[in-house]
Amino acid sequence: MIYLDNSATTRPFDSAIEAMAACMRETYFNPSSLYAPAMRAGEILAEARREILSAVGGRGQVFFTSGGTEADNLAILGAQRALRGRSGNFLTTKVEHPAVLETMAEVERLGCRVTYADVDAQGVVDVDALVAAVDGETTLVSVMQVNNEVGARMPIAEIARRVKEKNPRTLVHVDGVQGFLRVPIHMAREGVDLYTLSGHKIHGPKGIGALVVAPGVHLMPTVFGGGQEGGLRSGTENVPGIAGMLAAVRAFRALPDPAGRMAGLRRRLWAGIRAAVPDARLNGPEENAGHILNCTFPVKGEVLLHALEGEGVLCSTGSACSSHKKSKSHVLAAMGRTPQEIDGALRFSLCPMNTQEEMDQAAEAIGRCVNLLRAFRRR
Amino acid sequence: MIYLDNSATTRPFDSAIEAMAACMRETYFNPSSLYAPAMRAGEILAEARREILSAVGGRGQVFFTSGGTEADNLAILGAQRALRGRSGNFLTTKVEHPAVLETMAEVERLGCRVTYADVDAQGVVDVDALVAAVDGETTLVSVMQVNNEVGARMPIAEIARRVKEKNPRTLVHVDGVQGFLRVPIHMAREGVDLYTLSGHKIHGPKGIGALVVAPGVHLMPTVFGGGQEGGLRSGTENVPGIAGMLAAVRAFRALPDPAGRMAGLRRRLWAGIRAAVPDARLNGPEENAGHILNCTFPVKGEVLLHALEGEGVLCSTGSACSSHKKSKSHVLAAMGRTPQEIDGALRFSLCPMNTQEEMDQAAEAIGRCVNLLRAFRRR
Repeated sequence: MIYLDNSATTRPFDSAIEAMAACMRETYFNPSSLYAPAMRAGEILAEARREILSAVGGRGQVFFTSGGTEADNLAILGAQRALRGRSGNFLTTKVEHPAVLETMAEVERLGCRVTYADVDAQGVVDVDALVAAVDGETTLVSVMQVNNEVGARMPIAEIARRVKEKNPRTLVHVDGVQGFLRVPIHMAREGVDLYTLSGHKIHGPKGIGALVVAPGVHLMPTVFGGGQEGGLRSGTENVPGIAGMLAAVRAFRALPDPAGRMAGLRRRLWAGIRAAVPDARLNGPEENAGHILNCTFPVKGEVLLHALEGEGVLCSTGSACSSHKKSKSHVLAAMGRTPQEIDGALRFSLCPMNTQEEMDQAAEAIGRCVNLLRAFRRR
Repeated sequence: MIYLDNSATTRPFDSAIEAMAACMRETYFNPSSLYAPAMRAGEILAEARREILSAVGGRGQVFFTSGGTEADNLAILGAQRALRGRSGNFLTTKVEHPAVLETMAEVERLGCRVTYADVDAQGVVDVDALVAAVDGETTLVSVMQVNNEVGARMPIAEIARRVKEKNPRTLVHVDGVQGFLRVPIHMAREGVDLYTLSGHKIHGPKGIGALVVAPGVHLMPTVFGGGQEGGLRSGTENVPGIAGMLAAVRAFRALPDPAGRMAGLRRRLWAGIRAAVPDARLNGPEENAGHILNCTFPVKGEVLLHALEGEGVLCSTGSACSSHKKSKSHVLAAMGRTPQEIDGALRFSLCPMNTQEEMDQAAEAIGRCVNLLRAFRRR
């Protein structure tokens, strides 16, 4: 099996699985309990917070959530709720993940104005248009670090600088689910106030993520209860999930140049695909975040996906979470792709453990399958 | 170590840890992906839903959440949101978990009326008062199955019947976090519309829970995104957590008479405590859910807790999640206990794997520690 759907989810590191199991066996205590063994659970949380802050160049607080979606919700709705009934103006892009776009739709239902900035043909946000929409009332700008469908890197540092120049009180939120550990970020230096990350996209556990919140940023909770996580996110902390995510962050950071390695693999895969299917067309920048390759083939993407599955190559038609909805990719549509081009699109997403041989075999399989499907169509 | 804090959290079954690890190694796929291996992840979800429905006598749908707190939030805020701006009337009791009480406070901030029913000296809700507050506008009644501090069982079947007699459209929500698998429930027969359960209180993983929703009940989502869980709870499903919870539910259900066993252990512990500390006083019913024993000692509870920790006995001053808040127990206060009585209270919460020897040793340790602390005080 050649697994090329790492942007949907990743195979956890053995060290993450072992850290989780060890925590469940030995440190299963509730961190809110008063006896010493429970303090060990609290130390795992503290260690994970330090590791994450170090990984994102952050100085503030790390709030654990059940994943990237909840962290995006907390950033956006938490900022909306902190308005305490005042109306606000929110900005984002047309190619965000549904965890941001659907939350923005809720913000609109709550009476705020939301502006959706265009992207260019490569999927990169139009920074001028985005910044032009910032005004004195702008509460929050949310831009993803890396687009999950086409791998476009957004110019976060430039966006944060220009947004803050125009309105220093505007919060800058970055959905880093597809960028965390794979594309550098330094929240403090770049002026990023809120950063979302997810465990299961970096070979950690599912069901755990975090929102990193810069010093001085005030959010209101969206989940109510026992007051854990400084009152911002109630519910018994998922200590084993956090232990597993901590182990995964450490293991990922210990890899030798994972981003460079994946970018090299992607180039090789794309070269192989072009050789095998000369009329395949790239969606997204020629050089992007490095781990996502999205291209349109002259056949139906979903049919090609299942043909590739038969050859042991697993990939996706776009983002996993919308794959069952049968809706066209809003990302490719925003990039100006035609419905037919969108129909033929597949996403191959890599991890640092993929190999050159896998890229070559996948490209060959793609060539075989496309030719076969074309032959069928001709008959 | 004698672990008597199972209402704070439990030690996971080995089978739950193994199911989780196996899922992370072999079935780490995103259930939304389109290829066959991802379907196996979907089958785990389906199996867990069936097992949970069978365990609670439910006929509707099981929505996975990040835990009991989020499930309580979803039940209450999901019903409030389904009002679409109309005002509603919510009912609950004064002794609910903060996951319900704080969510009800939010419902009040959103403009709805919330009534908090009194409890008797044993912590059991006054059903007449509760039912008297039901009117034609009552949206939802939320009553816990078992109180988490004193183990009082609430008469759920009677409450549901009488509430529905008065207003058939009123939803009945049961926070079953402390009752699930330990006290029987049959949602369909008893007329319960919404049931909250948590994995880590039944020797399953942390970070996973569920809300069981009866057929025909309409809730609106509180987390927005990719549309997982039928659109009610977006975010990549925590498949390993669900696999672990499924294994735990099965293992718990396979235990021979766990409730009877725990009730016997509790009686033995209470008899031992009374023998060792004749002026210890029980908080809550003489016969309750069977796994929680709360009593007031003639010394400070927190000091006794740490003395017991020195003897290897782990317990709690009330609920874990409020233990760091230094606030007095709202449950014991609602039961009419004085501040001094609340100060001397400790909770011992059992699991089916506890033994008679542990009860005897704990009672002896309690006797020794109370006498020691009394001697200190006399000097």
